[in-house]
Amino acid sequence: MSDLSIRTARAGGRGARRAMRAAPDFEMLPSLKRGLPECEPMTPEQVRRIDEASMAILEEVGVIFRDEIALADWKRAGAKVVGERVYLDRHLVRELISTIPSGWSYRARNPEKSLPFGGKHSIFVPMTGAPFIRDLDDVRRWPTIADLNMFHKLAHMSPALHSTAHHIVEPMDIKVSHRHLHITYSSMKHSDKTFMGMTTSGKNAEDVMAMCEILFGREAMEETPVTTGNCNGNSPLVWDETMLSAMRAFVKRKQPVLCSPFVLGGANTPASVAPAVAQLNAEALSALAYTQVIRKGAPAIYGHYLSTVSMKSGAPMAGTPEISLMNFMIGQMARFYGVPWRTSNLLGGAKTFDAQAGYESAMTMNAVLHAGANYIWHSAGWNEAGMHCSTAKFVVDAEMCAMGYRMAEGPRWDDFDEAMGAVRDVGPGGHYLGHPHTLENFERAFFMPKMFDNNSIEQWQAEGSVEITERALTHAKKLLADYEEPKLDDGVNEALLDYIARREREIPAVDELNTEH
Amino acid sequence: MSDLSIRTARAGGRGARRAMRAAPDFEMLPSLKRGLPECEPMTPEQVRRIDEASMAILEEVGVIFRDEIALADWKRAGAKVVGERVYLDRHLVRELISTIPSGWSYRARNPEKSLPFGGKHSIFVPMTGAPFIRDLDDVRRWPTIADLNMFHKLAHMSPALHSTAHHIVEPMDIKVSHRHLHITYSSMKHSDKTFMGMTTSGKNAEDVMAMCEILFGREAMEETPVTTGNCNGNSPLVWDETMLSAMRAFVKRKQPVLCSPFVLGGANTPASVAPAVAQLNAEALSALAYTQVIRKGAPAIYGHYLSTVSMKSGAPMAGTPEISLMNFMIGQMARFYGVPWRTSNLLGGAKTFDAQAGYESAMTMNAVLHAGANYIWHSAGWNEAGMHCSTAKFVVDAEMCAMGYRMAEGPRWDDFDEAMGAVRDVGPGGHYLGHPHTLENFERAFFMPKMFDNNSIEQWQAEGSVEITERALTHAKKLLADYEEPKLDDGVNEALLDYIARREREIPAVDELNTEH
Repeated sequence: MSDLSIRTARAGGRGARRAMRAAPDFEMLPSLKRGLPECEPMTPEQVRRIDEASMAILEEVGVIFRDEIALADWKRAGAKVVGERVYLDRHLVRELISTIPSGWSYRARNPEKSLPFGGKHSIFVPMTGAPFIRDLDDVRRWPTIADLNMFHKLAHMSPALHSTAHHIVEPMDIKVSHRHLHITYSSMKHSDKTFMGMTTSGKNAEDVMAMCEILFGREAMEETPVTTGNCNGNSPLVWDETMLSAMRAFVKRKQPVLCSPFVLGGANTPASVAPAVAQLNAEALSALAYTQVIRKGAPAIYGHYLSTVSMKSGAPMAGTPEISLMNFMIGQMARFYGVPWRTSNLLGGAKTFDAQAGYESAMTMNAVLHAGANYIWHSAGWNEAGMHCSTAKFVVDAEMCAMGYRMAEGPRWDDFDEAMGAVRDVGPGGHYLGHPHTLENFERAFFMPKMFDNNSIEQWQAEGSVEITERALTHAKKLLADYEEPKLDDGVNEALLDYIARREREIPAVDELNTEH
Repeated sequence: MSDLSIRTARAGGRGARRAMRAAPDFEMLPSLKRGLPECEPMTPEQVRRIDEASMAILEEVGVIFRDEIALADWKRAGAKVVGERVYLDRHLVRELISTIPSGWSYRARNPEKSLPFGGKHSIFVPMTGAPFIRDLDDVRRWPTIADLNMFHKLAHMSPALHSTAHHIVEPMDIKVSHRHLHITYSSMKHSDKTFMGMTTSGKNAEDVMAMCEILFGREAMEETPVTTGNCNGNSPLVWDETMLSAMRAFVKRKQPVLCSPFVLGGANTPASVAPAVAQLNAEALSALAYTQVIRKGAPAIYGHYLSTVSMKSGAPMAGTPEISLMNFMIGQMARFYGVPWRTSNLLGGAKTFDAQAGYESAMTMNAVLHAGANYIWHSAGWNEAGMHCSTAKFVVDAEMCAMGYRMAEGPRWDDFDEAMGAVRDVGPGGHYLGHPHTLENFERAFFMPKMFDNNSIEQWQAEGSVEITERALTHAKKLLADYEEPKLDDGVNEALLDYIARREREIPAVDELNTEH
């Protein structure tokens, strides 16, 4: 078999193929259009049972909104409010969520990188919020703004990543109260893909909106979303002022937020899959409904962060079977309500980039793709339960997304009859290596992972027995050497820098850490 | 969060839970009954298109049977035979495969480990055929019969492995012409689970059948299968005498074989997913049909070995998106014909047990489970494209199967109303750690992987920064220390040893290597 590459090369097109292999391919893939059917483990009756249970929770148990403005908003909207607790009638909830669009187009500053979103369309977005980095030397340390810039560059150059997210790692060298400004600027500057917006407070979210207005203009933002925020709930059944004020900043300007209950299965939910989904569903619905109280017709995304909890350490686990099942079921619920939904991808709990990280990550990715999620967050770099972003894992995960993308597209049929002709040509006992159909189709037919070594052990040893972490870091360095900045318009760039400088003068410098998932 | 274990322990049942955690659990899981719907990317029309294309191949291109007996059998069965090439009319094919049972029960020597099989039932079987081992010290070397015994013991003790397979590793210290005898004996002796039977030649297969008769009796074998063989096709469209004679030995005695075309996508199939499936389907059908020529009504399994080929090295790759797609499609075809089907699981192409191995393996497992395969082979240990069986990977893969098992079962609903009561009890802002429903359900609610470390990095470092390979090997050593042999009946044991001794006298000692996949 080892002569295959020689044979195919000899058979024709050798120069072209070599050139293609050598040429870097940084071009972004379009928004994924999923061709596989979703994995739907619930019968329609079971979907209604979850819905019924969630509505009963909203009506009878209620949801705490720890936020004066939200409580006043809810009273005006006709909900029963007792102290901080809001009781939501199911008719009100259904009426409110009915105005959430089922999809839209995300506008990127490079119009070629704008993205259809929702329904069968899915996008991959890198991880967020790591307080540590494993860097280009695989050293675990506190990250800086230079590290964040690096990840935004790598996201920019990864075809299957549709976004740069925002604070992939926490830039610890910048005062926490000024951090959101520099994070947002880094996302905007180092890539022309869409990005996420900081929601660490209402005021920070207002700054993000102001910077988006500088980059895109207010009118463009009214037309279609340019960024995405995340608002975590405190399960069970609590939304707090920090998240709600950030939500208002985004939603008022028609920018979507992920309404994300933060599930530690068994700790802040019942210790059972279907009941945990029912609670999470109630929580997500309460926030989704609130987005429409803020602004009717504004886009919003059904979110969640899912983990199950280790009985040994209390730590969140990744890649466990129940997380897969919850993903499948949440997908069904989001489609039942007609709202796009977010999940988390390629999660690892390992301390290093070892086999555990690989198993956990691929388990998560398969769950997410079979579940049919739309906003596929944390798609690159996540390890150690989100405590660090691994540079090596980041580039491998990005390639895994490209593989998942190919799988989720489903099989193609455009060359079927032609290929059946090849079967007749080749006949029993022959081979396809030099056949014109093979030469025509080989490159697109089968994905060739760059980060996975498929050489013989002899070849691998002759090349120095390089394991995946080192291969990936070498690849990351090469990407960064080839990086070309997609320049911002000079005037826009100056306006952004002026804005940041002014806000830095206005906002007291404070040190504290805030993360979201 | 780190106080969860303390809190749950305090809340009650501490001693019971500690005892449960300490107690080894070697009990075999029942045959998996899949609760998830299968991933079916083809419309009914596309299924018929594959069927139509495969039947056209069988009728017009034909299949080579390099075997005098098979050619004579085919003539008698009414096929058109020209030289070694057999042209199979679709009506003949459909009529023949219609007598293959859609399922059966595998008999193990311990009746509690007998297995319902086919339809929604799936079983996990470890890998086969590695010419190298990575051993208990992670050293890569040639394996011995002692190594094979070790793997049979580990398979015996792994709850989600339903079988010991046969030559997981090649026992290089035994003459190749005598090897099948000792391999079969090791499978029979070290575990009371079902096992696979060697098909390295017709005569070797006859020996396996004879040893099965000693263990189970001829009548029991007529009632229901006691073992499974594998017969690889030489794609495209060739079956050879070695495989066909072994097939006859098994099928005559109503023991099923996997009819497994050996797909190196792009090299011995068209470079395209759907056409590769059409060719493979034709190949599998031709062998399935032949099993019914040998013995009408005998059990048989739709098989395949799937890989795509690296353009760089010509090596087979694992975990690529097209392998997943082909699995989904083959599952649809096998269900269309009503025949149980086999696939390969947890495959890795990595040289060590690194992140690559983890990603590839989990990609494969998800594909297999969503595809709804019945006979899930190569489910533990496979790395380096099958060139070695990794002891560390073996025990981790076995746990992955247990996780996949849990996922594939689907969600349960038996505690739904009770858990909804817990949501009311706990209310917004509470926690579930001490709630009776949690204490009752925590253990079964969420899978707790033993091989994955979910401690904090501080805890992990305090325990010596042990990575997964070392953790797994420590676990393997512990399992082996706890191993208890499920003793064979003395008379049966003696009869088996007598048979082996006699055949060793009769069969000339020869050295050469034969593997199957």
